[in-house]
Amino acid sequence: MIPDIDSPPTLEWVDDHVRIIDQTLLPAEVRVVELRTVDEVVDAIGRLAVRGAPAIGACGAFGVVVAVDEALRAGGAADPDDLAGPIERISGARPTAVNLRWAVDRVVAAMDGLGAGPDRRDAALTEATAIFDEDRAACDAIGRHGAAELAEARTILTHCNAGRLATTGIGTALGVVYGKAMAGQPVEVYAAETRPLLQGARLTVWELSAAGVPVTLVPDSAACGLLHSGRVDAVVVGADRIAANGDVANKVGTFSHAVAARRAGVPFYVAAPLSTVDPGTADGAGIVIEGRDPDEVQSPDLRAAHPGPVEVWNPAFDVTPADLVTGIVTEKGVLFPDFTDAIAGVLGRT
Amino acid sequence: MIPDIDSPPTLEWVDDHVRIIDQTLLPAEVRVVELRTVDEVVDAIGRLAVRGAPAIGACGAFGVVVAVDEALRAGGAADPDDLAGPIERISGARPTAVNLRWAVDRVVAAMDGLGAGPDRRDAALTEATAIFDEDRAACDAIGRHGAAELAEARTILTHCNAGRLATTGIGTALGVVYGKAMAGQPVEVYAAETRPLLQGARLTVWELSAAGVPVTLVPDSAACGLLHSGRVDAVVVGADRIAANGDVANKVGTFSHAVAARRAGVPFYVAAPLSTVDPGTADGAGIVIEGRDPDEVQSPDLRAAHPGPVEVWNPAFDVTPADLVTGIVTEKGVLFPDFTDAIAGVLGRT
Repeated sequence: MIPDIDSPPTLEWVDDHVRIIDQTLLPAEVRVVELRTVDEVVDAIGRLAVRGAPAIGACGAFGVVVAVDEALRAGGAADPDDLAGPIERISGARPTAVNLRWAVDRVVAAMDGLGAGPDRRDAALTEATAIFDEDRAACDAIGRHGAAELAEARTILTHCNAGRLATTGIGTALGVVYGKAMAGQPVEVYAAETRPLLQGARLTVWELSAAGVPVTLVPDSAACGLLHSGRVDAVVVGADRIAANGDVANKVGTFSHAVAARRAGVPFYVAAPLSTVDPGTADGAGIVIEGRDPDEVQSPDLRAAHPGPVEVWNPAFDVTPADLVTGIVTEKGVLFPDFTDAIAGVLGRT
Repeated sequence: MIPDIDSPPTLEWVDDHVRIIDQTLLPAEVRVVELRTVDEVVDAIGRLAVRGAPAIGACGAFGVVVAVDEALRAGGAADPDDLAGPIERISGARPTAVNLRWAVDRVVAAMDGLGAGPDRRDAALTEATAIFDEDRAACDAIGRHGAAELAEARTILTHCNAGRLATTGIGTALGVVYGKAMAGQPVEVYAAETRPLLQGARLTVWELSAAGVPVTLVPDSAACGLLHSGRVDAVVVGADRIAANGDVANKVGTFSHAVAARRAGVPFYVAAPLSTVDPGTADGAGIVIEGRDPDEVQSPDLRAAHPGPVEVWNPAFDVTPADLVTGIVTEKGVLFPDFTDAIAGVLGRT
């Protein structure tokens, strides 16, 4: 009931490149691809070959090292002028997850004041590796805190994939599930399929099955009835960005589960490392929501078959208002309302 | 902005058989299939080639005529003993929509006391045709009442397909949309795609596009955020069964939209003919919810790719509690809470 997070890892740094599982091919094929250029890093993040806020943060961090190497190979100094363009492309590969820009900024800051290219490269790799290691440790801590908080919750509903495939460790929402399993608590999961790209059906079912955790797949639209059936003890989801007031941007559909859970009297938890908290965004209204390709929703086949032009609304995320959140499980413990105070406190900003 | 409901019709009786559009093939192909045996009628209803509570009611009604013809061809008298088995198979082809059993029972009752086979056949066809015609007229009336009630609502969110493909006329929920268009009111629709079988993406988009009504497709999971964005003036859905207290069984996902609409302050309407009301079911707890094939949710490809056994929970319907319903648009006008009284009144049972 524990995922083998190294067979193969979701992402890792090997010598001079990033290796990732191409998650667009799961579960049919476990293909490891190498990202050796900034173009490849940006493309992998943009097309969701690597996804999940903590994982794309770590990928972006290593992406800065790739950018430095690329600049040095081109005969540049890999100084701020050389790197400004590539770094902005990496940071902007997806707009909603704050971890990406946070991680890239951290690696860039680590190079600050260092003059020589190789020194800058060493500093960048050290910092990116620290981000990777810290995320893995944060997942373990989230698992422990979540298991303590949700010790009595046997059946968990989750959305999308906030597991080992979304982080460098055992995951956030699924980190709680694995944390429960490691603590010897009985646990089973309902995985909402997560249209349009089916990260729940493809990824969460894959990794939970591989880890031996019982999982039942449900259409997103069935979750409301499921929550009212009494079969679910808690909803636990990840997050792509948490605003200073506790509003939570996460995969589209999360808001729907939160509203249903409130009516059904089922507690709704968010599990995320503090790198997902954006104290610079006051509330959910300030979070940029990525719009994605209509063809993700309407296959080209269906599109061709329809007699007229069909518009599609395909936001990647929604924002769950803080008032619907029971608790936020972080590596430093579980935060409870009032989230504005709790978040400021845990970030040391009170 | 009016659907051409006769090109071809969703279903019709021709000489000695039922003709339907095979809706499993839409929108790629408009194929008309003939149902000449009870087996074919039961199969068409069961595999959703014909679907929508009023349409399967009419199909079941004509199915009784098919059963009579089949009994007569076999040399029987088409008397109650001959027909009991076939009629129970038709009535039970799907469990949730009350219209099916209601329509079959009505046709059977019309044969009551008639001795000769041909007389029984004539009576059955006359009654089935009346059911067909009444549903068409009910749709028109629902359209008029809905347009009057929702005159100020420009943008409608709907779920599944409760349109001309679900009835013998212009539809129920989409009947309201067409009623608005015929009344000269501006109207546009957000169609939730309706996993797992995509009746929204396949059928509602097809018929609204053909009728010239602007339509935007959204994943079911995006509806909650959409409702909170201020872009939707009303939710209008159909129904498969309405209990005596106003609880509404409809395509799975309806409940989710209703909960979200309540929080967002968007009115939530159900449009259905009175044949969908089941005064014999006190409340939603008494409604049988059909469970369908797991392969509708998880394609065999995905299933094969997963390492372990994967359970799937795939209910066809959910039950929206009456307290979330703003009004029920019927052919006899719009019912408002208290629905128990309103329903009893309109059915003449007060």
